[in-house]
Amino acid sequence: MTDPDPDARGARAIVRKPLLRALDGEAVSPPPLWLMRQAGRYLPEYRALRAEVGSFLDLCYAPDKAAEVTLQPIRRFGMDAAILFSDILVVPHALGQDVAFREGEGPVLPPLAAADDLARLSLERLHERLSPVYETVERVAGALPAETTLIGFAGAPWTVATYMVEGGSSRDFAATKAWAYDDPAGFDALIALLIEATAAYLDRQVRAGAEVVQLFDTWAGVLPPDAFRRWAIAPVQAIVARLKTDHPGVPVSGFPRGAGLMYPEYAAATGIDGIGLDTAVPPEQAAALLQPHVTVQGNLDPLKLVAGGAGMAAAVADILGALSSGPFIFNLGHGIVPQTPPEHVATLIDLVREGPR
Amino acid sequence: MTDPDPDARGARAIVRKPLLRALDGEAVSPPPLWLMRQAGRYLPEYRALRAEVGSFLDLCYAPDKAAEVTLQPIRRFGMDAAILFSDILVVPHALGQDVAFREGEGPVLPPLAAADDLARLSLERLHERLSPVYETVERVAGALPAETTLIGFAGAPWTVATYMVEGGSSRDFAATKAWAYDDPAGFDALIALLIEATAAYLDRQVRAGAEVVQLFDTWAGVLPPDAFRRWAIAPVQAIVARLKTDHPGVPVSGFPRGAGLMYPEYAAATGIDGIGLDTAVPPEQAAALLQPHVTVQGNLDPLKLVAGGAGMAAAVADILGALSSGPFIFNLGHGIVPQTPPEHVATLIDLVREGPR
Repeated sequence: MTDPDPDARGARAIVRKPLLRALDGEAVSPPPLWLMRQAGRYLPEYRALRAEVGSFLDLCYAPDKAAEVTLQPIRRFGMDAAILFSDILVVPHALGQDVAFREGEGPVLPPLAAADDLARLSLERLHERLSPVYETVERVAGALPAETTLIGFAGAPWTVATYMVEGGSSRDFAATKAWAYDDPAGFDALIALLIEATAAYLDRQVRAGAEVVQLFDTWAGVLPPDAFRRWAIAPVQAIVARLKTDHPGVPVSGFPRGAGLMYPEYAAATGIDGIGLDTAVPPEQAAALLQPHVTVQGNLDPLKLVAGGAGMAAAVADILGALSSGPFIFNLGHGIVPQTPPEHVATLIDLVREGPR
Repeated sequence: MTDPDPDARGARAIVRKPLLRALDGEAVSPPPLWLMRQAGRYLPEYRALRAEVGSFLDLCYAPDKAAEVTLQPIRRFGMDAAILFSDILVVPHALGQDVAFREGEGPVLPPLAAADDLARLSLERLHERLSPVYETVERVAGALPAETTLIGFAGAPWTVATYMVEGGSSRDFAATKAWAYDDPAGFDALIALLIEATAAYLDRQVRAGAEVVQLFDTWAGVLPPDAFRRWAIAPVQAIVARLKTDHPGVPVSGFPRGAGLMYPEYAAATGIDGIGLDTAVPPEQAAALLQPHVTVQGNLDPLKLVAGGAGMAAAVADILGALSSGPFIFNLGHGIVPQTPPEHVATLIDLVREGPR
């Protein structure tokens, strides 16, 4: 499909980057591609650079190194987008909550327990603390090939709140749900703070050069429908509305992992331009239920990328067959895992660019 | 709604237990109710009995104690069904794999790595090793009130296989998926063994007095659609077909947790009579997509049961409002958690039995 009227599409469309065309609603052939966690431990050049830095947060806050890490997969593989190398927990950190990353253990935070703890957090130093991230965005924006799109991102408020309240990862999110269910208005105050911080953070990323922003709601799927509407859909809707006011031409994507049967409502209600599909979403249902309304992005199982071979090729063909005739961005259904052979990533990109056979 | 023709419904219907009427496709008012993990650590009488026994597996294999634990919540709360107290990992244990339960750590198994390990497993001693479970079923069947249904259960093959291959719980199921994706035919052999063992195990539970059996597929939601069809739908379909041949009147329920947009296909393809809804399923979608075909069962968030109060009442009213005019069994969307106040369980049962207001 060709662009019906390029002149009417504004400055960004004139650049005609494939990822932005797809997010504009165009069926781009071959579909643009990027991969969640495309910068990371599966790459030897990442591991080498990582070894030079103390903590994981130090890396996120070192613009030269974070920019280099962001660019590594683009140099090696030429994906259609680079995604800012950072972590969703820089926002609670910038709000004043301690965040540590312990090797093999994931993030550790002193858990927020209630309104008192919330009162100790503040937006005041947000941009000061996040300024190294904005500098990373600027550096990457200045270094990318002309056809490559720069994606900024943040965690969605619900998912960020779970880490803040649980103090790290969780199996059943009992502490976060206890707060949310026992005192929904009090929990709303935490979510409101995160809406404010996240909208401001993404606004600055866009000003620094991000051309698309994505909200990751990794733990959206643990919410029952009423709570999903209140703490997954409504906050993202509020952030999208803020961003669209100030930056009407900048597409916003959402990734409500595990949303299942709530995917269509999320796509319709949030106002997002693109939606990330997790590995469980059947591509043919995404084509029927989501693609008429938003650009879809996904959803190869990262473990199929590890396995490679005929199984990966068949799964890629299924996804392309169902989705590539509409607005579509190829991606994984979850992040690349460390044991992924880099040569499988190269093969995957070839498969996607050759198109369905 | 009353039963249109009780005489035509066979011996079980004459008993007219509410849960069996619901699984026969009747809209029973008030809806029958039971709760996943209704026997367990949230009950002081369970903790007292648990302290008398060495390991968790010892409890599963002590018919007097396992029967007592199964009956505890029925005595206290009068649910409409008792579910056999056991664990899904008794099947790999009976096949010859070591299984240990360490306090606070969950199950630990020596992980199966490939075909060689598989060859060491055997169906030969299955029934001998599981005979205490059959005795538990017999004891409970003889002790239940006349209106209470006895549910037997097993893990579905995919979920049991994940524990066997990972050696316990997992976050990304990398080892199981590596086997399944690298060598699907080899992995099929493990699934085939589990189909055989599970069908034989459930057959014996029915012969011992189980009136309904349920297959728990806790980790079904991590499978992409093609793998979901092969390793979640097909094995359950095979087990249901086996059970229906020998026990045509015994309803089978399935709980494909996290199936999301695959729920309707699972309900249609497996041949099950009842389907468990996880917390993420919107009740109104279950009413539209599932309830015309199967009895639905669910799906209050167990953390809403912990919170209690107005939030729990509102969620119960939503579920009843959407589902109680069709074939429906009230349940949680996941198991009761240990910190649940028993008095909230009593309140919940009152709310369900009062019906939507």
